[in-house]
Amino acid sequence: MAGVTAREHAEALDAADPLAGFRERFEHAGDGVYLDGNSLGRLPGATRRRVLAVLDQWSREAVSGWHDWIDLPLRAGDALGALLGAAPGEVIATDSVTVNLYKLVCAALDALGPGALVTDRGNFPTDRYVLEGIAAARGLELRIFDSDELEGPVAADLGGLGEGDVVVLSHVAYRSGALADMAGLTAAARERGATLIWDLSHSAGALPVDLRGSDAELAVGCTYKYLNAGPGAPGYLYVASELQGALRSPIQGWFGQSDQFAMERDYDPVPGIARFLAGTPPILQLAAVEEGAKLTAEAGLAAIREKSVALTELIVALHDEWLDPLGFELGSPRDPAARGSHVSLRHPRAWTFTRALIEAGVTPDYRGPDSIRLGVAPLYTSHVEIYDALDTLRAIAARDDLPDAPPARVT
Amino acid sequence: MAGVTAREHAEALDAADPLAGFRERFEHAGDGVYLDGNSLGRLPGATRRRVLAVLDQWSREAVSGWHDWIDLPLRAGDALGALLGAAPGEVIATDSVTVNLYKLVCAALDALGPGALVTDRGNFPTDRYVLEGIAAARGLELRIFDSDELEGPVAADLGGLGEGDVVVLSHVAYRSGALADMAGLTAAARERGATLIWDLSHSAGALPVDLRGSDAELAVGCTYKYLNAGPGAPGYLYVASELQGALRSPIQGWFGQSDQFAMERDYDPVPGIARFLAGTPPILQLAAVEEGAKLTAEAGLAAIREKSVALTELIVALHDEWLDPLGFELGSPRDPAARGSHVSLRHPRAWTFTRALIEAGVTPDYRGPDSIRLGVAPLYTSHVEIYDALDTLRAIAARDDLPDAPPARVT
Repeated sequence: MAGVTAREHAEALDAADPLAGFRERFEHAGDGVYLDGNSLGRLPGATRRRVLAVLDQWSREAVSGWHDWIDLPLRAGDALGALLGAAPGEVIATDSVTVNLYKLVCAALDALGPGALVTDRGNFPTDRYVLEGIAAARGLELRIFDSDELEGPVAADLGGLGEGDVVVLSHVAYRSGALADMAGLTAAARERGATLIWDLSHSAGALPVDLRGSDAELAVGCTYKYLNAGPGAPGYLYVASELQGALRSPIQGWFGQSDQFAMERDYDPVPGIARFLAGTPPILQLAAVEEGAKLTAEAGLAAIREKSVALTELIVALHDEWLDPLGFELGSPRDPAARGSHVSLRHPRAWTFTRALIEAGVTPDYRGPDSIRLGVAPLYTSHVEIYDALDTLRAIAARDDLPDAPPARVT
Repeated sequence: MAGVTAREHAEALDAADPLAGFRERFEHAGDGVYLDGNSLGRLPGATRRRVLAVLDQWSREAVSGWHDWIDLPLRAGDALGALLGAAPGEVIATDSVTVNLYKLVCAALDALGPGALVTDRGNFPTDRYVLEGIAAARGLELRIFDSDELEGPVAADLGGLGEGDVVVLSHVAYRSGALADMAGLTAAARERGATLIWDLSHSAGALPVDLRGSDAELAVGCTYKYLNAGPGAPGYLYVASELQGALRSPIQGWFGQSDQFAMERDYDPVPGIARFLAGTPPILQLAAVEEGAKLTAEAGLAAIREKSVALTELIVALHDEWLDPLGFELGSPRDPAARGSHVSLRHPRAWTFTRALIEAGVTPDYRGPDSIRLGVAPLYTSHVEIYDALDTLRAIAARDDLPDAPPARVT
């Protein structure tokens, strides 16, 4: 077999790829290389058809369509739950990640707290903003600890936890891609009487998640990344079944009410996970969530993870061969078992190189100040695309005539 | 001109209807009569095309589509604001009505309260549930007053208000269709140092709303009724510009953050209405909101209101001629100036008749225990449809062989 720096090596990996056929299940425009599925996944053909079917149903059935739509948050939730190691009835798809996290943090504080709020400085900003707001509103302490960026949070970081504290951590760090030890950290929090809420946004759909096997109590996550449900598609939340009776959403709405259409009664939440619904859920985009989850289930998370590791290993190998000598630094864990499905490449001129990559037809993601994130979506990313992207980046970084791009961008 | 009980009368009204051409702008299935646009509006053809265009943009541009999508909550909000008497930058479309109401109640209590929470027992249940939850969480009093159902809340009902109280009222009552005096009630609340939040769900799109002209401070509303944005489409919220700087959302998310993509900083909300955004907004359904608002603006709310009054007057007249003798009672205000765009017809066997109407191809709405709601959507409801629906109901109610339908239904 050819060495890693030969395109034939990547071609051979593609030829042997059992998931290669899934690429055609997505719509592709032009011949660019898309390595930003960790920000917004591509459009599956089945999702386009499903959205059209919902439009048809709305057109044909109007309000009567609700006989089918009313359970969609639960159906989509169960489809997601099957990918997350949750039991049926433990996951519901609705609202945004931000709103869902707000609901779970408040619910956990009310039922299991109130202690301090705790998170990792490396956690995704919206998670931190939610905690800042709740801490201020309730007069609670917010403790933000620093974890090693390449290692992510470890049990030692949780050393200061106390009874009633609520901790929010990302399963995969959005910047470095570090994969946290879900079972170990959950146990460490529980030993100290604290509750851990997992944010699965950067892991769900890209690797097996085992919520129940990890004894996880609460989680939220996003569907528009590796689950390919489209821009701003609803997020989801998980509440372990044994906790559902004790927890109540702070946002009491009619979709969480027992006997929803009786309308005259005081609020009395339904017994199960649906008590975390609030208002009327957005059906067009929930249908896309269900389709995205089904496509992922069809491919299987074991195969997806295997290919994800092969793809990120190829990035690391080509980084070592080509980019390290050009002043790059690996911003992700070197051990694939400790890494999610994206790799950060750090360089002081990352933003300039990002702009040049986009002009050359390669779409990476940039996270300031110095990281180029390359996300691999095993359902549609090929090894040859990785090869070509890294080859392009090598050529860009080797140029001595490239002016620095202005330092800001909108998205 | 023929009398009201002649079909020719309705035909003549349709022939003279300046909005008749808008009917073709919606998709219609079959030849049934749809009088539930106050629950879920029909699908505009332009909305189908727009949703397809968003799918195409997602397919073609992937994450780069955000250059266009990022401002959609504001653009759709301004399109709505123009229908609500708000200035640009005072309305944002995002989240559900329930979540938006939660945000505004908490924000009002924090900045202008905290006093008691107050609402009308006739208000829509989800509004009451939201208030119940916030009252319990904050240890505040929740006062629910009884208004006259046909009159809706009047200034006298607000007599007990005090400094810092937060009141939530519906502009049009969901059951009776009573239209509240927005300017008078807003002034009555303000005189007592209280803040009034309007729920516009059952008025927006069906009649002119004048938020600024009424000195209204805060409002929320729904887009899937008369604004035709589809099942579960995002709601909106209004904050008068002079209040925006003082109010903060309890749910702090990255879409409300200044310099959203800097990511390292503490939460610092953007100066304008966008501070009430939380997570990533659902783009497919926000696009439908913008289309629905544009179609309504094209028809014009003055013409829409004029036709709405003509349609509901026809219901009232036919009720008096045909249904009153059969034991029906008008459950809506008789004065059209005090009524929104639906009429409630009360009868002890309302549920049985509702089922029979649906079997006969007429879709009304039922609200327990005894109301058949007939919603008129002036963009696509014709006078002949009203005539035929009432004629059908008359025939059903006159039957002596109709078994009582079981008392419950799912939606």
